[in-house]
Amino acid sequence: MSTGGRLIDDLTPAEQDRAARVEKVLPALRAAAAQADADGVFPAAHVALLRDAGLLGLVVPQEYGGLGGGLRDLAAATFAMGSACPSTALAFFFHNTSASRGLLPLEAIERGLFDDADVPVVRDFAEKVLTRMAGGMWLANFASESVKSSSANIAISTTATPANHDGVDGWSLTGEKSFGCATGVADTYLVTARLAGHETADRLALFLVPRDASGVTARPTWDGLGMRGSANHGIRLDDVFIPADEALTVPGAFVKMLQCSRGSFVGNQLAITAVYVGAAQSVYDDTLTRLTQKTFADTGRPIAESPMHQVIIGSMTERLETAYLWLRRQLLLETSEPPLRPHAEVYQQWRLAKGSICEACFDVAVGALKASGTSSATMNGPVGRALRDLAMGLVMTFPPERGRLEAAGMVTSDRSNNLFAAVAG
Amino acid sequence: MSTGGRLIDDLTPAEQDRAARVEKVLPALRAAAAQADADGVFPAAHVALLRDAGLLGLVVPQEYGGLGGGLRDLAAATFAMGSACPSTALAFFFHNTSASRGLLPLEAIERGLFDDADVPVVRDFAEKVLTRMAGGMWLANFASESVKSSSANIAISTTATPANHDGVDGWSLTGEKSFGCATGVADTYLVTARLAGHETADRLALFLVPRDASGVTARPTWDGLGMRGSANHGIRLDDVFIPADEALTVPGAFVKMLQCSRGSFVGNQLAITAVYVGAAQSVYDDTLTRLTQKTFADTGRPIAESPMHQVIIGSMTERLETAYLWLRRQLLLETSEPPLRPHAEVYQQWRLAKGSICEACFDVAVGALKASGTSSATMNGPVGRALRDLAMGLVMTFPPERGRLEAAGMVTSDRSNNLFAAVAG
Amino acid sequence: MSTGGRLIDDLTPAEQDRAARVEKVLPALRAAAAQADADGVFPAAHVALLRDAGLLGLVVPQEYGGLGGGLRDLAAATFAMGSACPSTALAFFFHNTSASRGLLPLEAIERGLFDDADVPVVRDFAEKVLTRMAGGMWLANFASESVKSSSANIAISTTATPANHDGVDGWSLTGEKSFGCATGVADTYLVTARLAGHETADRLALFLVPRDASGVTARPTWDGLGMRGSANHGIRLDDVFIPADEALTVPGAFVKMLQCSRGSFVGNQLAITAVYVGAAQSVYDDTLTRLTQKTFADTGRPIAESPMHQVIIGSMTERLETAYLWLRRQLLLETSEPPLRPHAEVYQQWRLAKGSICEACFDVAVGALKASGTSSATMNGPVGRALRDLAMGLVMTFPPERGRLEAAGMVTSDRSNNLFAAVAG
Amino acid sequence: MSTGGRLIDDLTPAEQDRAARVEKVLPALRAAAAQADADGVFPAAHVALLRDAGLLGLVVPQEYGGLGGGLRDLAAATFAMGSACPSTALAFFFHNTSASRGLLPLEAIERGLFDDADVPVVRDFAEKVLTRMAGGMWLANFASESVKSSSANIAISTTATPANHDGVDGWSLTGEKSFGCATGVADTYLVTARLAGHETADRLALFLVPRDASGVTARPTWDGLGMRGSANHGIRLDDVFIPADEALTVPGAFVKMLQCSRGSFVGNQLAITAVYVGAAQSVYDDTLTRLTQKTFADTGRPIAESPMHQVIIGSMTERLETAYLWLRRQLLLETSEPPLRPHAEVYQQWRLAKGSICEACFDVAVGALKASGTSSATMNGPVGRALRDLAMGLVMTFPPERGRLEAAGMVTSDRSNNLFAAVAG
Repeated sequence: MSTGGRLIDDLTPAEQDRAARVEKVLPALRAAAAQADADGVFPAAHVALLRDAGLLGLVVPQEYGGLGGGLRDLAAATFAMGSACPSTALAFFFHNTSASRGLLPLEAIERGLFDDADVPVVRDFAEKVLTRMAGGMWLANFASESVKSSSANIAISTTATPANHDGVDGWSLTGEKSFGCATGVADTYLVTARLAGHETADRLALFLVPRDASGVTARPTWDGLGMRGSANHGIRLDDVFIPADEALTVPGAFVKMLQCSRGSFVGNQLAITAVYVGAAQSVYDDTLTRLTQKTFADTGRPIAESPMHQVIIGSMTERLETAYLWLRRQLLLETSEPPLRPHAEVYQQWRLAKGSICEACFDVAVGALKASGTSSATMNGPVGRALRDLAMGLVMTFPPERGRLEAAGMVTSDRSNNLFAAVAG
Repeated sequence: MSTGGRLIDDLTPAEQDRAARVEKVLPALRAAAAQADADGVFPAAHVALLRDAGLLGLVVPQEYGGLGGGLRDLAAATFAMGSACPSTALAFFFHNTSASRGLLPLEAIERGLFDDADVPVVRDFAEKVLTRMAGGMWLANFASESVKSSSANIAISTTATPANHDGVDGWSLTGEKSFGCATGVADTYLVTARLAGHETADRLALFLVPRDASGVTARPTWDGLGMRGSANHGIRLDDVFIPADEALTVPGAFVKMLQCSRGSFVGNQLAITAVYVGAAQSVYDDTLTRLTQKTFADTGRPIAESPMHQVIIGSMTERLETAYLWLRRQLLLETSEPPLRPHAEVYQQWRLAKGSICEACFDVAVGALKASGTSSATMNGPVGRALRDLAMGLVMTFPPERGRLEAAGMVTSDRSNNLFAAVAG
Repeated sequence: MSTGGRLIDDLTPAEQDRAARVEKVLPALRAAAAQADADGVFPAAHVALLRDAGLLGLVVPQEYGGLGGGLRDLAAATFAMGSACPSTALAFFFHNTSASRGLLPLEAIERGLFDDADVPVVRDFAEKVLTRMAGGMWLANFASESVKSSSANIAISTTATPANHDGVDGWSLTGEKSFGCATGVADTYLVTARLAGHETADRLALFLVPRDASGVTARPTWDGLGMRGSANHGIRLDDVFIPADEALTVPGAFVKMLQCSRGSFVGNQLAITAVYVGAAQSVYDDTLTRLTQKTFADTGRPIAESPMHQVIIGSMTERLETAYLWLRRQLLLETSEPPLRPHAEVYQQWRLAKGSICEACFDVAVGALKASGTSSATMNGPVGRALRDLAMGLVMTFPPERGRLEAAGMVTSDRSNNLFAAVAG
Repeated sequence: MSTGGRLIDDLTPAEQDRAARVEKVLPALRAAAAQADADGVFPAAHVALLRDAGLLGLVVPQEYGGLGGGLRDLAAATFAMGSACPSTALAFFFHNTSASRGLLPLEAIERGLFDDADVPVVRDFAEKVLTRMAGGMWLANFASESVKSSSANIAISTTATPANHDGVDGWSLTGEKSFGCATGVADTYLVTARLAGHETADRLALFLVPRDASGVTARPTWDGLGMRGSANHGIRLDDVFIPADEALTVPGAFVKMLQCSRGSFVGNQLAITAVYVGAAQSVYDDTLTRLTQKTFADTGRPIAESPMHQVIIGSMTERLETAYLWLRRQLLLETSEPPLRPHAEVYQQWRLAKGSICEACFDVAVGALKASGTSSATMNGPVGRALRDLAMGLVMTFPPERGRLEAAGMVTSDRSNNLFAAVAG
């Protein structure tokens, strides 16, 4: 059974083939993980490793040269990689999210959401994204910025203004992306920016920014608590010129794309939580192995059998399984055909699932720490690393407390809306 | 969508037909629920109601005259009934567990676990159980006794001694069953007893005891905290004569039967937790409806939108979903063909699932109480009733703390056994 | 050591004397508790019992004929009574809160908060309240109504309009008090109402309403989940005439009174949580005694020593102690001279303490249920009764979630106010 | 108010004087904290800093040249230092525990536990310990070893054998101390070892081992997850000669010493949890300040006021206060004269308190992480540092789960013992 098969019980043969490709890179990921964490540096060799394995095209349809995987493949892959090197899994995840910027526009075209005139432009950009990924380009998705808006979501202040460079029409980008994996590693950054003079989501646009384009600089490396090998320090863009055909600026394209997303945000965020579940399974396994091998000096019995250890292990087992349950359900909801549940319910479920998965995984790491004692409470050993990596899951995207409040809002405002409608009738 | 469809996303057409039969009895169950709880009495009319709907044969194969349902049907039914009247759902569940005493022996025969000489006797008893259930007999399963054993399990001290009554060979039963739903309601009690002079599980035997047989008396009605309408006070047996052909006393039959069980205990215990999930969904719905309809005097906005209510509702939503996740997973593990996971893992999962489901459901009731305030904190209203009924889930079978310790024991002793084997090698 | 001494380590000799009076009534309270709960009726004989023991004047200064006790005495008393009969303890608590309507106005006079002209009127009313309580009048405090305001607090809609009855000037009261202990039991109800035509807190007024006054009716008895023997169903007032000298209608009196309160609300609410701690200690003791006496049939060892029981008992012990910690700290903060902490901090602490105490106590009851199993899960036994009584603590006044949000608001808005001030400077 | 006064409300004037000495060193501790953590090195200058402030004699009686402080002083000091540099606070704590090896023997003499012949020897060693500490010697207490015993406690395998060195009688020590703060920093290590040929606690002995004695080597520096600046890597002893008058080898001395301890272990362990409470208060303050100063781009309101932040802050506030409550209570129980509670109860309370304090403090750090988001999730910033330092509290000494099980054992076995006694009677 592939590692990913531990998450997904019923991989199809095609999925098993793709999972086998992932399986092959795990030893290299595992071997480099401790050093990547210690140095806070993404292992450069992993780019070629994943490219050569064809995995940069994992979720790109075969017609564009990819492996034809879907969300199940992605989750199986990030889970498996997460059990070996969470940082690499995270960076790989963010590469794959770029595919949605190809797939969702194509679906929007199919649903007839675009005017005929816009269709060729949109299709061209979408296919460009997919083809390049399948061709081995690491395409890092850069959306987050540091500005906060109380009305939630991601706030984008990076701005694109029309420009002409040596006679080529295009755009000049200026702004800062505060968080983005594979900074300085990816071949190309997929940058979301707003068109100058507009403040609504339908004028958000996408730009393919070469890593070494003039005006692109990496932000200072920051010393992250966990996920330190994912090169997530982000970039600055100062008057970076991007030709028009390397951008998708059709008005409304961004919003139409989101409409076609199924479930979580742009349709694959659950795979980020699979990274954490993989990491939690790994520290769980490591802890069990250690504590069943280490024995008490007086009785010779495994330390794992002490009453305290039994309590902690029982709790860890329950928490780990809880993480799996939420993740598997979300995966089912986002991949079932026909859909098991309406879109709004799938979305609401995700708001809960994100936090419940990551909190459960963090609890597994805390349990591992408690069960393992001071001698394992080191910075770079498996327990300390898991605690730090899994702590990142509590804050990445949003904490559990926020997801639950959002779910409550959906539950009660839907209902009060319903009730309003009844009153109006 | 049938109520049971809320639990199981993908009911087959045949399952939907059976769920429709359940759906039809729900209004009557719901209508009688409050009074049944207040009086602490099982509503007598429900026997005919369920019999006429064919539901007493719900999980009996069609070849024996039943509806041919399986564990999914049973869980969908107890969930749906649990949302209307948890007490009835519980009593109905215990009737259905009797079917395993027909189905498992038949499977043991098929697997070749019985000697040829025993096969006809075993088959005869098994078919008798199934045929009678399908024919409309309420067959209450009475196993539990009040004695406790530290080596876990259910301890059986009710004893059968050989007897002859008017020339008929048979057994004389004496003992007490401290807990059993449908006491005084069921047509027949399926009683587990040990054969006199034996103290091992392979000499446990089954007896079909008519409700009104001489020597059978109901124990005093006890005033339960919840599940008060399930008539669970149990019986006393004093020298009750049962003819030999109304018993299964073949040595080892009980143990062989258990060997054929898949997953939880005798293979259907998860359906008891479905009762609680149904009840939790019901109080959740009721609370949301109430709190979105009731408004603040000053703002006119629903009370449900206050910050405190949002926190509690977010948490209730998360807890309710958690209950579903564990239950659906257990159901999948116990019904998938071929089995997704090995038997030991399915069993271990159940030890965790039982407690996690029931604790999550109880938390939903506590959330409903907190959100609803003093005015809903009544004995017999939906909130008070749910709190009391769901509190029973914490103790029925075993509390969460015990399940987690048992899971830990399986995890660590399996591993230490494995490790021992490696050392020995 | 008196029971109350279990809560307060360092009772003074005078406090010990008063605690000894409480101690003497406990057996009678304990003896009547189960029946009071079963019937949902306050035991009528307790009025004379407590009056004869002098306890109706427990917190009335000696100069007004009382026993001269303070908040420590009240908490010790409600704790001790809570361990015997929580319902009686609760009703007794609400009688004692009436004393604050005498004590706080007197303190406001001393602080010079009233105009000279108002002083005699205010003093007269205050002394009337105290003297009557000391003289053996049960003076039930009726404030709560069922209307909800999003801007928090208790909303009062009961209205007093000027009236003249047989030549006597006074007020006509109309409205409903939805919750009030000792309904139909107390000699007099201390009713808070607003003066007609006013909607601000400074025109709230107090009225001494005889139980049998014309126009006073008890609301229908409601079937509470817990605290069933406290007669808390409340009253309706329909054009009830109260002479002017049985009222405190001086403008601003209510607000000035609150200004003099120390700590929780009107200065003694912590004693309501002492009721719950007493009840939690009682069910804890009962459970430990039962489970250390009951033994396993096979080993003869106490059931309490099983691994599962050890986990639950360890947790119950921790939760019970947590309740004590919060309660003792609040008591210290509200009684220390000079004050250990500023008023705002004492108030903020109470918002946290209320919920943390009551939640911890409820957890003790849930632990008792889990540890005791189905056989103790009865409606009226000690476990079931504790679960129901302690569930009321979750909703009475406010749930833990609300207190924590209020504390957060104080923490952050104080800080942001401070910061604003700095910016303005 | 001194920082320590935040923990202890009612410092006496003498305690305030001593707290003022602590207060003066805090800025230097705070200034060096981040670098000490980053480098994993105890700041060497702190030895002179604390010595010059007289703090190495903080808990040494004035008659031996110390400041005359007690457990309250020690807790106030470690709390205050913990808010500035938890690592230094921890190392300082372990220096101070050495004083109990002087004070407890003296108390044992006073209680008449020693034979007359042993008294001068014991007194001489005790006074040597105290005088040297007061004189400015850093005397690090080294007890822990890595071997585990299922029968709990600390297992000691370091062995002392009689030796003669250049005509001086003494002992040769061999063994390893796996954990000990101020390794390579302290002037002298106070080493607990067993006398060769004995395996009972009454033959444990104490040795004053100069840091630079022949045969003493520091174990390899280990890369701790937190408390990285406390130099806790421990030592190896290979045939280290210690003259007889630098040892306390009187049979039974160790056990008699423990008999005189009040409360937690050797009577001052609660001060180790004060380190964590100080660190938790610090990250709480830092987080509140940051989140009330940072504002939303759209509304200009502090981020701290968002609904999610209010939930997290409310919870952090409750958890932090919970830590204080347990710590203050333990301090009261261990310092009150006359004792408020019997010794067994004080000891049992400590088993609970240790875990509850440290878990609450860790929860504060997790809350700080969630509230602060990815941008503060750095390795060396205040949030990341607090998370790592406070994680150590979960494992140091023992995890919460173990303390609760031990408390349960005391509760139930005391009770079953009592019951046994009754049966025997």
